[in-house]
Amino acid sequence: MNTINHDKTDTIIAVDAMGGDYAPDEIVMGAAVASLESPTNIILVGDEAKIKAVLEKTDYRQDRIEILHTDQIVTMKDTPSEAVRKNPKSSLVMAAKLCGRGKAHGMISAGNTGAYVLSAVKYIPRIKGVRKTAIATVYPTRNIQKRADNFALLLDVGANIHCSKEEMVQFALMGKIYASDVKGIENPTVALLNIGKEPYKGGAMLSGTFSILESIPNLNFIGNIEGNDVMKGLADVVVTEGYVGNIVMKTMEGIAEIANHLGRYAFKHRFLWRLGLIALSGGIRQMKQLTDYSEYGGAPLLGFREIVIKAHGRSKAKAITNAIKLAAKTHRDNVCGLIEKEIQQMKSQFGNG
Amino acid sequence: MNTINHDKTDTIIAVDAMGGDYAPDEIVMGAAVASLESPTNIILVGDEAKIKAVLEKTDYRQDRIEILHTDQIVTMKDTPSEAVRKNPKSSLVMAAKLCGRGKAHGMISAGNTGAYVLSAVKYIPRIKGVRKTAIATVYPTRNIQKRADNFALLLDVGANIHCSKEEMVQFALMGKIYASDVKGIENPTVALLNIGKEPYKGGAMLSGTFSILESIPNLNFIGNIEGNDVMKGLADVVVTEGYVGNIVMKTMEGIAEIANHLGRYAFKHRFLWRLGLIALSGGIRQMKQLTDYSEYGGAPLLGFREIVIKAHGRSKAKAITNAIKLAAKTHRDNVCGLIEKEIQQMKSQFGNG
Repeated sequence: MNTINHDKTDTIIAVDAMGGDYAPDEIVMGAAVASLESPTNIILVGDEAKIKAVLEKTDYRQDRIEILHTDQIVTMKDTPSEAVRKNPKSSLVMAAKLCGRGKAHGMISAGNTGAYVLSAVKYIPRIKGVRKTAIATVYPTRNIQKRADNFALLLDVGANIHCSKEEMVQFALMGKIYASDVKGIENPTVALLNIGKEPYKGGAMLSGTFSILESIPNLNFIGNIEGNDVMKGLADVVVTEGYVGNIVMKTMEGIAEIANHLGRYAFKHRFLWRLGLIALSGGIRQMKQLTDYSEYGGAPLLGFREIVIKAHGRSKAKAITNAIKLAAKTHRDNVCGLIEKEIQQMKSQFGNG
Repeated sequence: MNTINHDKTDTIIAVDAMGGDYAPDEIVMGAAVASLESPTNIILVGDEAKIKAVLEKTDYRQDRIEILHTDQIVTMKDTPSEAVRKNPKSSLVMAAKLCGRGKAHGMISAGNTGAYVLSAVKYIPRIKGVRKTAIATVYPTRNIQKRADNFALLLDVGANIHCSKEEMVQFALMGKIYASDVKGIENPTVALLNIGKEPYKGGAMLSGTFSILESIPNLNFIGNIEGNDVMKGLADVVVTEGYVGNIVMKTMEGIAEIANHLGRYAFKHRFLWRLGLIALSGGIRQMKQLTDYSEYGGAPLLGFREIVIKAHGRSKAKAITNAIKLAAKTHRDNVCGLIEKEIQQMKSQFGNG
C-alpha cells in the first residue's frame, strides 16, 4: 500500500472502490483519470489486490492515489441498518469514517444508497446549525426559460420523510449554495414544490415555509411550482419533503424507462418505425446527452461537514472521474463553510436555527 | 324549455353545459350523441338559448334531453370559494344541487376543478360512513404485467392534502369498487404509493395503512409500490394522499408535455428527424391512443352519494359522450351503494368507520 504524506492544503477525497454495478474496475479507472486531470488526492477504499490489479493496467499519478485496504463489502441487497451494523469495516463505512475523522474532505460511493446515507449520518458530523441533512438530485429539464443550465436540483429526495418548515428553509439555503457553486449561477432561483401556485396552498407546513422563504433577503425565491413545472425547469433549486421528492424523482425515472421501452418496442416490431428511429438517432442522442448522469457527477448529500456525493449505481469511469472532480471543487470552494455561514445568518435573523 | 316526466327507474345525469374549453358547443354535442346511444336522461344546465342553438343543428332524442336554464357561469380564473359563493346559480352549482336533491343520479363538468369539488362537497351528501371524498384519476400505464386494462386508477389526487390511515383505507376500498365496475375486473389489485417496498416504510401513517390493508379479506392488496412503478402499471388501483397524488399526476402530465415539445422541436429543426417522425407516426398515434382521455371519459370524485365525474378541460364531444355513459353505467351498477356496503362491512370488522 502506498501512503501519501498529505500537505495541509491538499484536497483529499475518499472513494468507495467496491460500491456500484461496475465496481471495482470502473471506479478505480475513474479515480486514475481524476488523478491525472485534477490536483486532488484520492484514497481508494476497498480490496487492495483488486484495486492494484486495475491500477497496474492504467495510467495514474502515484503521488495522488493511495489505497486503504478492507475486504468487507456492502451489497445492494443488504438493508441499510444491517449493512452498517454488520460491516463496520466495509469500504462504505470506512470511507465515511475517514471523512468523520478529518482524514478526507469528501467521499464518493456508487453503492447501496440507504447504507451510504446511514454511514454518513453515523460517522460524519452535521454542519453547525443544520437540523437535517438532505439528498439532492440533479435532473435534466426542458429549461423553457433559458436558464444558464439545463439541469436543476431537487431536494430532499429521501433522507427524511416529513419535515418542519425550518428544515425546508434550510434545504432551500443549502440547495441555493450548492447550485450557485456547482453551476456558477450567481443567484439561483429557488421554488417550493406544492399543489398550487397560491402561497396558502398545501397545508400549514408548506404555507409556513413559503412565508419564511419569501422574507429572506438575497434569496431568489420564485414561489410555489407544481408537478408539471418540475421538468420544465422553472427553477434552479426545487425544495420538497423527502417523501414527496423521492416519489417524484422515481416517477421521472419511471417515465424515462417507458420512453426507452417504447423505443425498443418500435425498433423490434415495425420496419418503418425502425427507419424512423434511425433517422431520429441524432435527436435521441441529444436527449440522452441531456439526461446523462455521467456528465454531472452525482447527487450530493447536503448538510454534512464534509462533502458527500452519491454516484449513480450504474456509474462507469467517466461518471466517477466527474464525481471526484465535483467533490474536490466543492471542498476547494468551501461550500460546507458557506452553508454554515448562511445557516448562522438565518438563525441570527429569524431565531430558528 | 322541455321538461321530461322521469320514470322512477330512469337514470338521470346532470351536465354542466357551460364548463370546459369547448363549452357549450362540444358539451351539448356530446350530450346529443349520448342521448342517441344510451338509455339515459340528461339535464343540460346552462344558457338555454345557446344550448338550443347547438341542439337545433344536431340529432338527439328529445325525450331524453331537458334544459335547466341559468346564465351564471364559473370561469377557470375564479378561485373555488369565490366561484361557489358568488355564483349560487352557476351551471356548476346548479348541477350539484340537482344531485344533492335527488333530481339527478350523477353530474359531469369539464369546468373549473376546484369549484367543482367544492360544489359537490357543499351540495351532495357523502356516502354513509365515508370520512373524506377523493379525486381519482385514470392514467395510462405500460402494463408490464398484462393486466386486463392498460389504465390504472390513482387516488386521491388533490381533494385532500393529508390523510389518516383510516381515510387511506377507504380510498383503497372506493378505488377497488370503481375499478372493478368500470373495468370489469373481478378483483382489482390495489397498491400503496410509498418510498420503498418494505411494509415499515414511509412513516406511521403509511405503515399503519399498510397493515390495515394487508388484513382486509377479499382485498387484492399487493403492497407498496414506488414512484417508478406507477406508470409501469403494477396495480389497478394506486392509493396515496392528495398532496403526493396531485404532484405525481402533474409530474406525469409535465413529462407528456416535454415529449410533445421534443417532437415538435425535432420536426421543425432537422429534415432527417422529420422523416423519422413521419415514419414513426403509426407508433406515435398508438401512443396517443393510449393516453387519450376522451376514451375513458373522466376522473371520478369518489365518496359522494351520487356519481360525480370531472371531464378534462379540453374535452370535446366524444369525451363528454363517454363521460355521460360512464356516469350512467356507474349509477345503474349501483357503485355508490356498493361502496357504502363495503365501508359498513369494514366498520363492523375493524371498528373504524
